[in-house]
Amino acid sequence: MYRTHTNGELRIEHVNKTVTLAGWVQKTRNKGFMIWVDLRDRYGITQLIFDEERTSPEVMEIAASLGREYVIQVTGQVIERESKNPAMPTGDIEILVSDLQILNESLTPPFTIENETDGGEDLRMKYRYLDIRRKPVRQNLVFRHKVTMAVRNYLSEKDFVEVETPYLIKSTPEGARDFVVPSRMNEGQFYALPQSPQTFKQLLMVGGMDKYFQIVKCFRDEDLRADRQPEFTQIDCEMAFVEQEDILQMFEGLTRHLLEEINGVTVTDFPRMTYDEAMRRYGNDKPDIRFGMEFGELNEVAQHKDFNVFNSAELVVGIAVPNGNTYSRKEIDALIDWVKRPQIGAMGMVYVRCNEDGSYKSSVDKFYDQQDLARWAEKTNAKPGDLICVLSGDVHKTRTQLSALRMHLAQELGLRKADEFAPLWVTDFPLLEWDEETSRYHAMHHPFTSPKPGQLELLESNPGAVKANAYDLVLNGNEIGGGSIRIYDKKVQAKMFDYLGFSKEEAKAQFGFLMDAFEYGAPPHGGIAFGLDRLVAILGGQETIRDFIAFPKNNAGRDVMIDAPAKIDESQLKELHLKLNIENQ
Amino acid sequence: MYRTHTNGELRIEHVNKTVTLAGWVQKTRNKGFMIWVDLRDRYGITQLIFDEERTSPEVMEIAASLGREYVIQVTGQVIERESKNPAMPTGDIEILVSDLQILNESLTPPFTIENETDGGEDLRMKYRYLDIRRKPVRQNLVFRHKVTMAVRNYLSEKDFVEVETPYLIKSTPEGARDFVVPSRMNEGQFYALPQSPQTFKQLLMVGGMDKYFQIVKCFRDEDLRADRQPEFTQIDCEMAFVEQEDILQMFEGLTRHLLEEINGVTVTDFPRMTYDEAMRRYGNDKPDIRFGMEFGELNEVAQHKDFNVFNSAELVVGIAVPNGNTYSRKEIDALIDWVKRPQIGAMGMVYVRCNEDGSYKSSVDKFYDQQDLARWAEKTNAKPGDLICVLSGDVHKTRTQLSALRMHLAQELGLRKADEFAPLWVTDFPLLEWDEETSRYHAMHHPFTSPKPGQLELLESNPGAVKANAYDLVLNGNEIGGGSIRIYDKKVQAKMFDYLGFSKEEAKAQFGFLMDAFEYGAPPHGGIAFGLDRLVAILGGQETIRDFIAFPKNNAGRDVMIDAPAKIDESQLKELHLKLNIENQ
Repeated sequence: MYRTHTNGELRIEHVNKTVTLAGWVQKTRNKGFMIWVDLRDRYGITQLIFDEERTSPEVMEIAASLGREYVIQVTGQVIERESKNPAMPTGDIEILVSDLQILNESLTPPFTIENETDGGEDLRMKYRYLDIRRKPVRQNLVFRHKVTMAVRNYLSEKDFVEVETPYLIKSTPEGARDFVVPSRMNEGQFYALPQSPQTFKQLLMVGGMDKYFQIVKCFRDEDLRADRQPEFTQIDCEMAFVEQEDILQMFEGLTRHLLEEINGVTVTDFPRMTYDEAMRRYGNDKPDIRFGMEFGELNEVAQHKDFNVFNSAELVVGIAVPNGNTYSRKEIDALIDWVKRPQIGAMGMVYVRCNEDGSYKSSVDKFYDQQDLARWAEKTNAKPGDLICVLSGDVHKTRTQLSALRMHLAQELGLRKADEFAPLWVTDFPLLEWDEETSRYHAMHHPFTSPKPGQLELLESNPGAVKANAYDLVLNGNEIGGGSIRIYDKKVQAKMFDYLGFSKEEAKAQFGFLMDAFEYGAPPHGGIAFGLDRLVAILGGQETIRDFIAFPKNNAGRDVMIDAPAKIDESQLKELHLKLNIENQ
Repeated sequence: MYRTHTNGELRIEHVNKTVTLAGWVQKTRNKGFMIWVDLRDRYGITQLIFDEERTSPEVMEIAASLGREYVIQVTGQVIERESKNPAMPTGDIEILVSDLQILNESLTPPFTIENETDGGEDLRMKYRYLDIRRKPVRQNLVFRHKVTMAVRNYLSEKDFVEVETPYLIKSTPEGARDFVVPSRMNEGQFYALPQSPQTFKQLLMVGGMDKYFQIVKCFRDEDLRADRQPEFTQIDCEMAFVEQEDILQMFEGLTRHLLEEINGVTVTDFPRMTYDEAMRRYGNDKPDIRFGMEFGELNEVAQHKDFNVFNSAELVVGIAVPNGNTYSRKEIDALIDWVKRPQIGAMGMVYVRCNEDGSYKSSVDKFYDQQDLARWAEKTNAKPGDLICVLSGDVHKTRTQLSALRMHLAQELGLRKADEFAPLWVTDFPLLEWDEETSRYHAMHHPFTSPKPGQLELLESNPGAVKANAYDLVLNGNEIGGGSIRIYDKKVQAKMFDYLGFSKEEAKAQFGFLMDAFEYGAPPHGGIAFGLDRLVAILGGQETIRDFIAFPKNNAGRDVMIDAPAKIDESQLKELHLKLNIENQ
């Protein structure tokens, strides 16, 4: 036994006890006649004291030789500290060491093992095992564990069964790119790693499992954007004999439970909003509703004068920035520059200062009088002292631009508070989404999503207008989950594949097993999947998922610590019936 | 809402309630004026009754049209049954149906959805979604879920943190063959799927996580034997600042907890045995100790006469078969044939009948007198009425053969009872194992396993004798877990790699990150991994893991339901910088 206690548990009531502790040397202070060592493990830090009057010269000598991150084991007596440290749970006591053993030495770490480290991202990733010794990183991983335990226990209580679905499955060209796995035993053939267990969970519903969940790794070979990982974790769920309302209720329950159990927050409001409404009010299908700044559509009150920019626009829309009238001209110009950046892409921005005396001063005073501007203020809900920002143009683009501005301003104004939680269901998503590249409609969610009752008929005449039984769960402006009620009628499913441009043969080759299964009594069913990495980050009050993953990959999909991916032996390739196909080799 | 209740919950106290149920038609009995339907879901079966006096003609007509496995929804009144069925939890009541809707039709399934089905293995696997509707399969999956929840809750209680380690890692030629994943973004490079999270869990210990576990999929591209899967699930665990005793205690606790919580069995004995002892007493490093038939070594009492077969043998060893004297000559000949089968490979078998009167009759009476045979009986602990079976030859082979015979006989004699549980630790495994093929010693467990204190020195002089801090957890004759105390000293680890034939460069290329980590204060650590598939099967009183996996692969590593692996598009190959390397293409 290496220790009698951890470094986080000794208190004043342990005084006089003889204890054995083990851990890492966080830091040492050597006054010659006295040496203090902070001993660290996962559970905390305990102060050790070596004192030439009470400690043997041999032990003093070893203590003097200790370096940062040495692994040591000590035995000693718990004594009361002369100067207590109320900031530390163990701050009332220290250990007067009688015996000290060095279990392992350490080189000086490449960055400090402190809450605020001097190590940059790259160095921290390369030495992730040292980074994990830092309290914030370790706490994130423990936090993640707490969240998954809470999810599992909640869903188990509700009769969900966690079923493991296979990782070595079949590649389907639809959707994102698959990672594939060459089969040695089946020459010229490949498995694919799942992008999600979608078809398997539907098969489990056909199989009568009734309520399924799984916390499961999924894989997508996409060109990585910031904060995307090639492997990511989902909380995947499916229920049979349900309508949309049953799913929303169940997972509203889960979300409330998590916020209560993990964050100690009781959510009173759990609003719902259709996709159309979310787009109209926030220009965004995952609006952050912790703060106002709702969109005011101004076409009606801005398209009656000679301002051609507005008159020719599909949409004129504004938001009121609380107390924005305090912005200097320079600050407003900076905002205008911000929306004109290529990432946002607005052509310009009109603004209206709402003075405290009730008058207005705008950048378009040439075209609009005080009465006009008062009506803008009314539409955007602007108060005296606010600033109205107005964008115009194509409906979708303008909304997206103004939404970006709204989020940017909210961040700057400190309106996105990490400890405030506002969940929201967004429902009635469009079934299809226009793809510029292929000039075709694609399934917005996936091809198994059912259209809203009675809307299937619109598929031919007005495909963009067809709404789906699809919903997203939004938390603080992030999509944390999304799902749908599935098609369970084989004729509807066949029609959908047909509409999406699958030939009968393609549909059969890729989803034949699902179509077959639907011949044998598929129940009505639907589900949802949560992105665990993001969910955990948001519950943890952060938005960077990488900080909640033990061993993340970088933006090139590399694990810089183990240096993967890497070359493999020629013999391995040969066994897999493969040759490299590389130019300039 | 599709239902007010499930098909497993209605009881006599619900009589007169109006309820809505949904599920699958298990069977129908149509007497014309009355129709009974057994309605099934995951939770049970409820009997529906349609009666021409009380049910509308329209509903009667639909009821008459129902086929097996149709999905229906009914509304009706709970009534008391005239003839109750005490074998069914819902057997006191039935539902007098007033409204019936067919939610989905079904083709006639290719096999019966009954506890005992008429479907063969192949058909069941192809239509696994129908197989899962069968109660035994469904119950196995629910059982598996219960086991994993119990494991997770127990370990969480004990301060273990579940940490997800990556699936896209780096190929290491050591050990079994890796599945690899070509990287599109890193030309000519490959990820590998983990055979286990071994190095990552050790890095987590270096990182101070202290207690880690994970229920995790692992992958091995081996030629499949019966009941092996290319993807399998482990309960992977690791602890820092522990000695072997700490690990044995902790996971003895887990095992006791599972047997108690899952099987309602309190284990009183939890014996330990060294590898050497297990081999001597049972010829097996995972002995089933639920029954006796321990080995009796007979060299001393059988090598003093003219029987050359024994005199020239390294080992003469026997077991006493309880009441085996009742075997006919024909039955004994069948046993002899059984051990001479190529799979077992014995040259022959000597037997001794122990008569009720205390006399002996053996197949070697020419060489041995009654007194000799009495000493054999003493060594094998044979009683009057038993049969002694004796094999001889090379120590290791003979033990293996006799162990196979022991298990075979125990199975036949019904001594391997599914509801009886006998766990056992086997400790002190050899560090190295001789590999005939490469004529070299290999790590028996893996190259990170530490030798027993003071034994490292034997590596050069007598490598086969070096014992490791390695242990297996055995349950009912199956290895359900195995682990070791790891090397945490970088010099010892380097020496081990060196001994195992890794050049410095190879060791660095494959395990450099671990060697690096060991430079920065690695704590003493060790762990264990359980094979979840097997653990669940054994707790479930069965030995075939495939019955506890939702979507297993066949012996050629194929998923016959989804037909994977499969060919992929030429364009996919090209993106991955690969060409097929197939003869006769």
